[in-house]
Amino acid sequence: MLAALSFTIAFVCLPVALGFSNTAIAKEYKTTNSSPNLSPNLVVSYKDLPEMRTAVKTPGRFADKYHQLKENIDQQLTLAIDVPVPADGGGGYTHERHKKNYQLMYNAGVIYQISQDKKYANFVRNILLDYVALYPTIGLHPKRKVKSQNPGKFFWQSLNEAVWLVYTIQAYDLVRDALTEQDIASIEEKLLKPVAIFLSEGQPSTFNKVHNHGTWATAGVGMAGYVMNEPEWVEKALLDLDKSGKGGFLRQLDELFSPQGYYNEGPYYQRYALMPFVTFAKAIENNEPQRNIFKYRDGIVLKAITTTIELSYNGLFFPINDAIKSKGIDTIELVNGVTVAYGRTGDTGLLDIAGQQQQIILTGDGLKVARALDAGLATPYQYQSVAFGDGANGNEGALVVMRQHDKNTPSELGQTLLFKPAAQGLGHGHFDKLTWQFYDQGAEIVSDYGAARFLNVEAKFGGRYLPENNSYAKQTVAHNTVVVDETSHFNAKVKVGNANHPELLFYENNKHGSVSSATINTAYDGVTLTRTVALVQLPTDSKAVNTPIALDIFAVSSSETHQYDLPLHYQGQLIESNFERDAFTQQLSALGNNNGYQHLWLTANATPAKGIAQITWLNDNGRFYTQTSSVDGDTEVLFTRIGANDPEFNLRNESAFIYRKKASKNHKFVSVLEPHGQYNPAKEFTLSAQSNVKSLKYKVVDTIDIVELVLKNNSRYLLAINNATDKSGTFTYDNKNYSFDGRMTIIQIENQD
Amino acid sequence: MLAALSFTIAFVCLPVALGFSNTAIAKEYKTTNSSPNLSPNLVVSYKDLPEMRTAVKTPGRFADKYHQLKENIDQQLTLAIDVPVPADGGGGYTHERHKKNYQLMYNAGVIYQISQDKKYANFVRNILLDYVALYPTIGLHPKRKVKSQNPGKFFWQSLNEAVWLVYTIQAYDLVRDALTEQDIASIEEKLLKPVAIFLSEGQPSTFNKVHNHGTWATAGVGMAGYVMNEPEWVEKALLDLDKSGKGGFLRQLDELFSPQGYYNEGPYYQRYALMPFVTFAKAIENNEPQRNIFKYRDGIVLKAITTTIELSYNGLFFPINDAIKSKGIDTIELVNGVTVAYGRTGDTGLLDIAGQQQQIILTGDGLKVARALDAGLATPYQYQSVAFGDGANGNEGALVVMRQHDKNTPSELGQTLLFKPAAQGLGHGHFDKLTWQFYDQGAEIVSDYGAARFLNVEAKFGGRYLPENNSYAKQTVAHNTVVVDETSHFNAKVKVGNANHPELLFYENNKHGSVSSATINTAYDGVTLTRTVALVQLPTDSKAVNTPIALDIFAVSSSETHQYDLPLHYQGQLIESNFERDAFTQQLSALGNNNGYQHLWLTANATPAKGIAQITWLNDNGRFYTQTSSVDGDTEVLFTRIGANDPEFNLRNESAFIYRKKASKNHKFVSVLEPHGQYNPAKEFTLSAQSNVKSLKYKVVDTIDIVELVLKNNSRYLLAINNATDKSGTFTYDNKNYSFDGRMTIIQIENQD
Repeated sequence: MLAALSFTIAFVCLPVALGFSNTAIAKEYKTTNSSPNLSPNLVVSYKDLPEMRTAVKTPGRFADKYHQLKENIDQQLTLAIDVPVPADGGGGYTHERHKKNYQLMYNAGVIYQISQDKKYANFVRNILLDYVALYPTIGLHPKRKVKSQNPGKFFWQSLNEAVWLVYTIQAYDLVRDALTEQDIASIEEKLLKPVAIFLSEGQPSTFNKVHNHGTWATAGVGMAGYVMNEPEWVEKALLDLDKSGKGGFLRQLDELFSPQGYYNEGPYYQRYALMPFVTFAKAIENNEPQRNIFKYRDGIVLKAITTTIELSYNGLFFPINDAIKSKGIDTIELVNGVTVAYGRTGDTGLLDIAGQQQQIILTGDGLKVARALDAGLATPYQYQSVAFGDGANGNEGALVVMRQHDKNTPSELGQTLLFKPAAQGLGHGHFDKLTWQFYDQGAEIVSDYGAARFLNVEAKFGGRYLPENNSYAKQTVAHNTVVVDETSHFNAKVKVGNANHPELLFYENNKHGSVSSATINTAYDGVTLTRTVALVQLPTDSKAVNTPIALDIFAVSSSETHQYDLPLHYQGQLIESNFERDAFTQQLSALGNNNGYQHLWLTANATPAKGIAQITWLNDNGRFYTQTSSVDGDTEVLFTRIGANDPEFNLRNESAFIYRKKASKNHKFVSVLEPHGQYNPAKEFTLSAQSNVKSLKYKVVDTIDIVELVLKNNSRYLLAINNATDKSGTFTYDNKNYSFDGRMTIIQIENQD
Repeated sequence: MLAALSFTIAFVCLPVALGFSNTAIAKEYKTTNSSPNLSPNLVVSYKDLPEMRTAVKTPGRFADKYHQLKENIDQQLTLAIDVPVPADGGGGYTHERHKKNYQLMYNAGVIYQISQDKKYANFVRNILLDYVALYPTIGLHPKRKVKSQNPGKFFWQSLNEAVWLVYTIQAYDLVRDALTEQDIASIEEKLLKPVAIFLSEGQPSTFNKVHNHGTWATAGVGMAGYVMNEPEWVEKALLDLDKSGKGGFLRQLDELFSPQGYYNEGPYYQRYALMPFVTFAKAIENNEPQRNIFKYRDGIVLKAITTTIELSYNGLFFPINDAIKSKGIDTIELVNGVTVAYGRTGDTGLLDIAGQQQQIILTGDGLKVARALDAGLATPYQYQSVAFGDGANGNEGALVVMRQHDKNTPSELGQTLLFKPAAQGLGHGHFDKLTWQFYDQGAEIVSDYGAARFLNVEAKFGGRYLPENNSYAKQTVAHNTVVVDETSHFNAKVKVGNANHPELLFYENNKHGSVSSATINTAYDGVTLTRTVALVQLPTDSKAVNTPIALDIFAVSSSETHQYDLPLHYQGQLIESNFERDAFTQQLSALGNNNGYQHLWLTANATPAKGIAQITWLNDNGRFYTQTSSVDGDTEVLFTRIGANDPEFNLRNESAFIYRKKASKNHKFVSVLEPHGQYNPAKEFTLSAQSNVKSLKYKVVDTIDIVELVLKNNSRYLLAINNATDKSGTFTYDNKNYSFDGRMTIIQIENQD
């Protein structure tokens, strides 16, 4: 609602206001350009330079970074400049060389401004002049793809060309005060302006697109407008080529993030998308502070930064969708984000993140971060439990993060439950509606495969996404959510997925923990999936269970009969089950033929008796985990290992178990996941290797889900969750009346024996 | 030779010398006992106490440890003392309680001496008096085993009873100055002396045994002799009950370690065996410095300590034999060892280890360690390349450690090759003659399974060694050495293994790296296995290969035809092979029926063409590893994964490949292992994912093995190894003459193209 309102303002009111404002800015801007004291002024600003120049003379993180970069650039200065005629596609020599050139120019420009040694500016000038010589001689890139992407000239796709401009315009801004009038004229008229026009007027479909590719283009062109005194370009960058507000940077800020700053492709892509937003916003703030860009849409840029941090565990991003698992908060895009955010807010919790990132940026904000870290001002960053609404208005499902941690554990290492009733997330999205993951003591416990890819490893399908990314990693069975009739959600059609999303029914965080519920009836025709998960701490007088537990109630309903599979992918070594398993000892077969099932070896199966089925595994973190499920005596359990139909050994051989209910219309999978004990072979002790759960019963009373949990020490608890919207929770259980406020409560009741 | 000499002296000369010496000691000893200033004097000595008492008043590691232990003991003081009637076997309540009691008494005794607060002494006294009341009422332990072990009274086996005495006599020594004459008389006459006599005269077969169980008994009884003024007990502890020197502590020092301090069960057991040696030696040194116990056998006690450190990688012990992999240098036994060793030597490299151990011992040596760490005196411990001779005389094979590391890498994280032409190592030994392991960047690359056991996890076979320890982990195929006809070395008979050992042919460390060769002809009837391995650095002007490589030449010879399998167990994800593999995609079958083969799934097979076969994998450490083998076109490669015939999911599902040569009499497996490149998906780059090796040829010229290695940049090298004993290496290759000194050289020769 707030976002919609905000967008209306931007669309209807701003063009007028900005029209006025811009005239003033343009005037100021001309003045600025005529005075050498007032440049550079994009991300690195003339206002910060005196202090930066002083800072590198005294020991500390900022000086260390400066000297390290300077040494690197000094070495580059001895090498020949190479601005090759564009020839190669992504990964090829000319592609990589042009990428290297813009980074080199930017870094040399920074070293010039801090050292004030003209040789660095001359180096940048020489590269720029080579580009000036090259640019008029080349047309569209020979490796362009006709259909899918707008082409560049230096690069096969215009996305890279826009990134080139974002860096190069900053490099130019950094060295301009050292250039002759003649050089300035050549560089601006023969190179930078043509590139900016090419990326704006020359490709409206990308420039106006509300998409992160568009953000790179608007950022590059907008910053070019500031530097080369083209206020119209800034207007167009902010508001679409026709200045209607239908496209442009502000519209991108309105639509690409949810009101809480969530980017719907997930954190792995969010950190990538972040870079041009943060860069352009900082340049806008330095040039036109009156726009209050960091306050735009209730501070969406800063929210996007902190949300990227929040979507991590133990320093690594939650690996939802096509994510490579080793990517985390130390990624350079988030280093820039955290630097700018600290510069704005002075939040010492952000210094904790900056400290973990161990990278200093040579800007004014970077100096603030470096000094604060040198002074030991960092305080532990406190990760929160949050339901991040998905979609521009935050109402297209949500990504829910639940966290608990004890006093001795940093919040990033506590128990964390990720629940994903989020939207599809475009082409990199997985068919994993309502899936969950569980983390504890720094480790994945209930895991997601992430992307099937060995980035840039030529032998592994050229380093691209592997065929198994489609055939396994994206499929529903690769996740921890219900698969109906061995087919994936939306029949694995991205378009259908993008057009439909789950509905978040509720999320609440109270003294017992967090609870959330969501539903979707479009993943399968005629089948409704509804899942309620909670991360709760039993009352601590219960010594038997002193670690939070995860509750999972997965209801599937249909008017037709189906087969329902609920997989759980676990990380660790199976320790035991409380039921007999028939293991395949001499031969293994693939579990199925398609939709990911063809990649699973069936290693054992079982049909536990009515009551509770318990499966315990031991994680490398030294703790045991038991999932206790309420079973009806007619549900199978299949134990699997990834690796079938994988002739190239592309997949990791991880383990899972699948609860399978055949020929059923309505079914509920109810379970509790319990961390317990400790395995310490180094110190030679093992504690509480067995589950403390004695029984698990599930009952619905009106709108209230009730789980009765009895521990082995005979403590007895009711976990009650209220699904009603009016929120008054009263129910009768074993002839006693109970009442609670809010969505969830835990009630300790008398032992039965 | 040195060890044998040393033993002769101990046996022939010492009894006389000691007889004289002891009279003097006994006199001094009486004097000592009559003066309260001169006790305690076992590991904690009255000489160190004044400084220890001062130290706990100033902040630092020593004070921290003291306050932490004191707090713990203060809590124990509030609980009831329990000295139960012995009833349970290992792991049961009374067993664990008696273990806890001796630790409690020892710790309370230490706190008493430092705090000089009598309440701690009284606590120890009260426990001791409960033991005084109990001891005369009990006979042999009800859970004793009639055949295998000498029984105790408090414990089912006398080993635990000896450990009880080692701790309890120290606890008594610590509090004795606070006891009344009457208490002293009761405790000594009714408890400690009877226990000491029970453990010596009462069980000569254990007390006199040259075995680590015997060491606990001699240490306990010997220390009891010092404390209770029974010099004869000290004599017997040192020299056998009959003082012949046939048994006793000195004989144990002579025989249980090799001259270099290697204990033939391997480091996992060595650290356990270490405890009574270090404890008793320290007590001897404090009471009878004239014995020069730390100089005995050329300083064998200190060598045993440093060798235990050397037999680790990245803080964890090499997992040879029945070792649990998470055990490492922070084990309490080695904390004690390093503390005593630092106290003796002041070697600041040991402080590096102590720093990693993060445990401070409350003794005089512990104070030295704590102060030195507080003062930042630690210097990096330098791990060495060493061939540790096995057996009492060091001539029963060897355990060879080869190390390389560059300037930026600590020695414990460099390239490390472990070669194991060692003896069987008794009942916990594996049938793995001539196996090897490879480590790099802190990680296992070519690995050993270690023991199949989940220590103390009840659900996993009661926490004992799993059945799969015998059926898989001990079998030859579970290691990286040749298996003949799918049977294990010595047909998996421990007795045969103990009676035979490989012969170390040579070991040399020179400027190119390390090389070693060993042979055994008793592992299989009529088959001789000879392996030569080297860890070498190619000349660093070869930019293509800047990391040391491992060379492996495994020669098998027989007059009969056999099938020869050479497995390599690798840690990581398979990236590629330079030959086609036929993978089993729909079904997997077990590779064999017994000797460990029944536990391997065959996942793919291949028969590479004549030339080189290359297999590349990626380790979690971010580096690629390629094994390049010279193949004859008639050698199969089998790819396997552990997990067949494992109904309880007891085994880890690790991967291997096996080079298989069928129906052959003589065969040589020749290969090079090459670490290369870097995979960094977090920073989004991948370097040198492919091997730099273009060709590998092998040739024998007289006594010289020659491997010709051509890299992809066309650099060409000869690695020559001289097997002759006279050590002059001259050979002709491609019509050119070469000559080198020593066992190994690397010669760069002209490119052929």
